[in-house]
Amino acid sequence: MEAKAANGPNTERSYGVIDGPTNPMVTPLLTDLYQFTMCYAYWKAGKHNERAVFDLFFRKNPFGGEYTIFAGLEECIKFIANFKFTEEEISFIRATLPPTCEDGFYDYLRGVDCSDVEVYAISEGSVVFPKVPLMRVEGPIAVAQLLETPFVNLINYASLVATNAARHRLVAGKSKMLLEFGLRRAQGPDGGIGASKYCYIGGFDATSNVAAGRLFGIPLRGTHSHAFVSSFMSPDEIIDKSLRSCDGSRTCEDFVSLVQAWLNKIQWSRSFRGVFGETNQSELAAFTSYALAFPNNFLALVDTYDVMKSGIPNFCAVALALIDLGYKAVGIRLDSGDLAYLSCEARKFFCTIENEFGVSDFGKMSITASNDLNEETLDALNKQGHEVDAFGIGTYLVTCYAQAALGCVFKLVEINNQPRIKLSEDVSKVSIPCKKRCYRLFGREGYPLVDIMTGENELPPKLAERILCRHPFSESKRAYVVPQHVEELLKCYWSGSSGKAREELPPLKNIKERCMKQLEQMRPDHMRRLNPTPYKVSVSAKLYDFIHFLWLNEAPVGELQ
Amino acid sequence: MEAKAANGPNTERSYGVIDGPTNPMVTPLLTDLYQFTMCYAYWKAGKHNERAVFDLFFRKNPFGGEYTIFAGLEECIKFIANFKFTEEEISFIRATLPPTCEDGFYDYLRGVDCSDVEVYAISEGSVVFPKVPLMRVEGPIAVAQLLETPFVNLINYASLVATNAARHRLVAGKSKMLLEFGLRRAQGPDGGIGASKYCYIGGFDATSNVAAGRLFGIPLRGTHSHAFVSSFMSPDEIIDKSLRSCDGSRTCEDFVSLVQAWLNKIQWSRSFRGVFGETNQSELAAFTSYALAFPNNFLALVDTYDVMKSGIPNFCAVALALIDLGYKAVGIRLDSGDLAYLSCEARKFFCTIENEFGVSDFGKMSITASNDLNEETLDALNKQGHEVDAFGIGTYLVTCYAQAALGCVFKLVEINNQPRIKLSEDVSKVSIPCKKRCYRLFGREGYPLVDIMTGENELPPKLAERILCRHPFSESKRAYVVPQHVEELLKCYWSGSSGKAREELPPLKNIKERCMKQLEQMRPDHMRRLNPTPYKVSVSAKLYDFIHFLWLNEAPVGELQ
Repeated sequence: MEAKAANGPNTERSYGVIDGPTNPMVTPLLTDLYQFTMCYAYWKAGKHNERAVFDLFFRKNPFGGEYTIFAGLEECIKFIANFKFTEEEISFIRATLPPTCEDGFYDYLRGVDCSDVEVYAISEGSVVFPKVPLMRVEGPIAVAQLLETPFVNLINYASLVATNAARHRLVAGKSKMLLEFGLRRAQGPDGGIGASKYCYIGGFDATSNVAAGRLFGIPLRGTHSHAFVSSFMSPDEIIDKSLRSCDGSRTCEDFVSLVQAWLNKIQWSRSFRGVFGETNQSELAAFTSYALAFPNNFLALVDTYDVMKSGIPNFCAVALALIDLGYKAVGIRLDSGDLAYLSCEARKFFCTIENEFGVSDFGKMSITASNDLNEETLDALNKQGHEVDAFGIGTYLVTCYAQAALGCVFKLVEINNQPRIKLSEDVSKVSIPCKKRCYRLFGREGYPLVDIMTGENELPPKLAERILCRHPFSESKRAYVVPQHVEELLKCYWSGSSGKAREELPPLKNIKERCMKQLEQMRPDHMRRLNPTPYKVSVSAKLYDFIHFLWLNEAPVGELQ
Repeated sequence: MEAKAANGPNTERSYGVIDGPTNPMVTPLLTDLYQFTMCYAYWKAGKHNERAVFDLFFRKNPFGGEYTIFAGLEECIKFIANFKFTEEEISFIRATLPPTCEDGFYDYLRGVDCSDVEVYAISEGSVVFPKVPLMRVEGPIAVAQLLETPFVNLINYASLVATNAARHRLVAGKSKMLLEFGLRRAQGPDGGIGASKYCYIGGFDATSNVAAGRLFGIPLRGTHSHAFVSSFMSPDEIIDKSLRSCDGSRTCEDFVSLVQAWLNKIQWSRSFRGVFGETNQSELAAFTSYALAFPNNFLALVDTYDVMKSGIPNFCAVALALIDLGYKAVGIRLDSGDLAYLSCEARKFFCTIENEFGVSDFGKMSITASNDLNEETLDALNKQGHEVDAFGIGTYLVTCYAQAALGCVFKLVEINNQPRIKLSEDVSKVSIPCKKRCYRLFGREGYPLVDIMTGENELPPKLAERILCRHPFSESKRAYVVPQHVEELLKCYWSGSSGKAREELPPLKNIKERCMKQLEQMRPDHMRRLNPTPYKVSVSAKLYDFIHFLWLNEAPVGELQ
């Protein structure tokens, strides 16, 4: 029931058939106070219904890369679909604003919703680039302004962590299993839940976060911790020692002894004689207990005491006992030490078991590694050579440790059909004015070549026709492109009550698939970790001229003194 | 209503009279899957009710400092006070665990709550140090284990961001106003809400986050953005130009003209002749409109076009017009450029206005600065000299950009009255075993000298008696201390149904006060930004001996080959 409330439709605010945001704390009050003071000032000036166009975009790709994954759109749409103030919220705003504010404003707020708002956005999970609007929000200026903070909040971290996940996937390679283990180190509870969702989009296979598994249907993974191992003293404490065979045909009455017998057999075998001595009994008890509980899913954490002298031999003894009863063990997890070395040694040990005891496929036992992994350590492991099949990644992934924030902004580009430009002494901070259309142009080899922004009323770029693409601010940077394929980037995701057709919100799996497909489609030099080539973002010749006309108009003429 | 649900008591899970966690997504499913697989394995082995003691602690202070602020406790207590699985949650766990898991386990889960759990903790808002348990959790091992992930999640970010806030406060000095402006860049919605709460504890005065203001009663601040300025074209568009004087005695029918008159007066005054030319009309219109809406709270963002040539003169014209009508203007905000230089120039401008027009206190106009501020930039501003009265800090503060995670861990230290030690080849990762008591010893000058951990049954350190304090792992590091004051650190915050007395959860304001008081009490060399002196954390002689006895017992004896 509780969780239903967290995820289910927010009936009070329901608008159409779209559920509310995943986190019920995402309400119209989750915004900066200045959105309300501005809202009042617009209302007081009679300006509140003036039609404004805002672009949401970022200025620089994160993590020193040349691409970003756009994520968080679904939550934004769920938010505006249910945008409505409760009486209690209005009372709080009234108590917060100065007492001189007029009552009529609160009547106005009572009627505010997003039926007059339209949102055009790039599809979630797309590869995106600086300066190109990820979202274009059109609506009454007072309402659009109230959306700024929640939209930027919902997009910033989502896109950042999805990008981080994609970068980890690119380094790990397609064949590895990537597990998100970050909940405990995430920045707050839904830092954790958001991380699980957006890492899945960015290319992770599963999460440890049960709440995220339930909310989003993401596969879950997890076995046991060091505490589980040290909570046992010795195999003597195991009371119920019986285990039925996998096919149910017989019961081993003393699985503990079977494990012990296998441990002896390994220890005194030709291959392992003298390799290890007495293994840790607390660990052996823990592994045996875990196997009794999960005979079909036995995966053991082997580094509580000593990986090669205790963890691996104990694991193998239990695994072989399980195999005797027709089960298949899954593998091990390493959570400390030299993961490259230990994974190779573990693999050798497994292969030797396979040969020594003729147990087929024992050498293919799965090896999971965790412990402060990040892009750099994955890369280093690849260079050293390793035998890891799955990586569990936490802190560095979910907190985006290498760069903890993406700088998405929300800028006014037009009001009452008048284009607006935000100037700055720093050219990279000048915003591109006008309500725009955005296209991605693809070349002969199927790679995207350039993104181009045009004015709303310009003709779209045509296939196989030469188009001049200009850098928005640098006069000399321009290139002709003959696109083999043209994709319009901004699609209508929210049309309010206008009746305009809008895109459906796709299921999470489809968003992930889009992301994986788009990443594959990119020219590899844009994606490499070191010195990637910047992807080109441009404007049409017409828009270029218009930007510079406005710029000259707005900029004060200095006086040299 | 909606928000009531987010904050109000969670009746379904209510236990005693403590409300549920602020974020309703903090449910018993907000944990790692392995907590459930271990829980099942404990249950299957009949071990689930064995009494375990876990310590929650961190190993290293963040941000290169030598102190940390402990925060997040209230949310943990609210969580366990309402810990209970819903049927729907149990169904999800059943669907997630292998089908071989026995039904009895789910009956067991149905009955699980925290009535058998006890939590001892350092008071929230305290200054804390590595290795000392922030929380000691005692209870049935299966239940305590389920609490690990949510507790660590709730403490990690809370303590990290509170510490970050405290560091900003220490650099800014007591007299400055500190405003948390981070919602849009936070890691998800309650990254933002948590940041507001914990930055307030750590020493911030107010937040821009309306939801946090409402949930926690934190003062709110905010005026307007650049978009507000650029949404205006010229003062001609202002329709309702009248403004009643502050005392209500008269009405100025054309405030726009009054502002214009002041602007002319300034421009042609003796002091300002030739200093600035035509100011930006869009900005002037925006300021005038904002003043008409908030005549008592006029604070203007002055850097949309040109601070000294447009923003400041426009602000002064509007402020002087307001003063004519008996109002007091608040001040300006700078959001770009050289904040040290511009704040000094702005102050000079204000003082010149005060002298030129005989307007008393105009020179004391408040100056707020924002724009990517952090500890370093605050420090640099102090060194350069500046005239800023208030700092608005966002990204670097709330995302803890300088170090995005704190590494709190949750380690088993005792089970069935048997102490447990977690060994590691890395000495800093060895855990301190046993159920412990922790004390802070204060010296003659009132400063804390050292924290000491003892076994549960040792006598507490006595006033004015010599106590040997030993480094937990380094034989030669030890010192005698004669405490002038002794404070026991761990207090009972949750006693389940045991009937033991427990501490009340204090209001947020008291937590903040505790934090401010404790920060003041520290010896300054522990707190300085560069090369701070580490604060000493020690164990009693008895505990030292016991740790090393256990260590030798558990560690395998290597063989040199």
